[in-house]
Amino acid sequence: MRFSFAALSQRGGATGSHTDGWGISFYEQKGCRSLHDPNPSAHSELAKFIRSYPIKSLMVIAHVRKANRGRVALENTHPFGRELWGSAWSFAHNGQLKGIKTRKLTHYAPIGTTDSEHAFCWLLDRLRTLYPQRPSDHKLSLAISELFGDLRELGVFNALLSDGRSLYASCSTKLCYVERRAPFGQASLIDEDLEVDFAQETTPNDRVIILASTPLTRNEIWTHVAPKTTLVARRGAIVKSFA
Amino acid sequence: MRFSFAALSQRGGATGSHTDGWGISFYEQKGCRSLHDPNPSAHSELAKFIRSYPIKSLMVIAHVRKANRGRVALENTHPFGRELWGSAWSFAHNGQLKGIKTRKLTHYAPIGTTDSEHAFCWLLDRLRTLYPQRPSDHKLSLAISELFGDLRELGVFNALLSDGRSLYASCSTKLCYVERRAPFGQASLIDEDLEVDFAQETTPNDRVIILASTPLTRNEIWTHVAPKTTLVARRGAIVKSFA
Repeated sequence: MRFSFAALSQRGGATGSHTDGWGISFYEQKGCRSLHDPNPSAHSELAKFIRSYPIKSLMVIAHVRKANRGRVALENTHPFGRELWGSAWSFAHNGQLKGIKTRKLTHYAPIGTTDSEHAFCWLLDRLRTLYPQRPSDHKLSLAISELFGDLRELGVFNALLSDGRSLYASCSTKLCYVERRAPFGQASLIDEDLEVDFAQETTPNDRVIILASTPLTRNEIWTHVAPKTTLVARRGAIVKSFA
Repeated sequence: MRFSFAALSQRGGATGSHTDGWGISFYEQKGCRSLHDPNPSAHSELAKFIRSYPIKSLMVIAHVRKANRGRVALENTHPFGRELWGSAWSFAHNGQLKGIKTRKLTHYAPIGTTDSEHAFCWLLDRLRTLYPQRPSDHKLSLAISELFGDLRELGVFNALLSDGRSLYASCSTKLCYVERRAPFGQASLIDEDLEVDFAQETTPNDRVIILASTPLTRNEIWTHVAPKTTLVARRGAIVKSFA
């Protein structure tokens, strides 16, 4: 995580123009830590601290923001978080959604003023109305894929959603992923002069999947996802794809 | 905040036995940052980072945990957070509440297994049922004071609750506070060899109130609150007291 975050955080002011805040949410069992900063990640003391902190997590969502709707402020900084069915849900989004704010909300209300948080509240609202209790993984994936498809009709909806168990990814325009498993090799970041030998950092049974808008490393094979696709990842692998 | 947190964090393993995790939530306008660690605060890298970080906030809740219900884990670490009426609410509690888990919940569900988080979910559930839209400050204070009184019947309920605008404090057995305003003087921490001259850190219009289970400083006048009291604080002053 520190390796990927090193790359992503550079895009917030050093190698990229996503300077309107950044955030990261990572799960430790049922708990979720969420750190946000409306300052550019490339120059953030908190981001520097995270890069040096030995965090162990099986599910992480990180985001660097380029504001288009909603001013630069802590409450408008992704990932957003809410509780549903006794789980902590996290959500990050790139894009704009035309007319999303006209959609009525019942159970959840936005704290900030972004399109994205409204979309997140709407998603959880719909899931909660469809399923007062948590449904099976299969039903949940199907429902989320349909809701993602609905949101993609409103504009650009590249997004990540997680309850700590599964990661749901929507590709509107840009999404790619890389899988890492034994035998592990080396990787070099595109955004920073940093290389890691995963063989030194892993066990033979480890399995990791990284999703991003654009590739983070130069010497690995990234798979580009087709537009209008929803992916479901669990335990380090893609388990479902809805086109 | 850094001064008070320096004292409180010492009670998590150095001068006190509250070693089962710690957390802090602080507001910046409508946004709320929340940092948690299941490790003792006195030896936490994250706590050390916060103590050196120049955070500016008008509302802060911090907690060091001594576990009695619910194992030591991130999801059981206070303050807990939920959204209600488009605001981020935070809650921290010391004590035990007999039978709280038999109370039915509709809108909110605990993520962890503590009495405290169940009580928090129940509080917000009741508020939401009473008031689908946010009521006036007066009605809200009254409702919270009644709900706090109800919870105090179940055991020990020393607690802090906030939406970023107001702080609601319940005294079951232990609560005290100090008000700081011009002319500002000096203060020395009880738990650590640290002194601050607030005159150097403030403007003449600043007004601060600190609430804690037991006094944090030795050379200021702390007011001890009577058991079975609910206090409401806003903009650095007690604005209401319900006995």
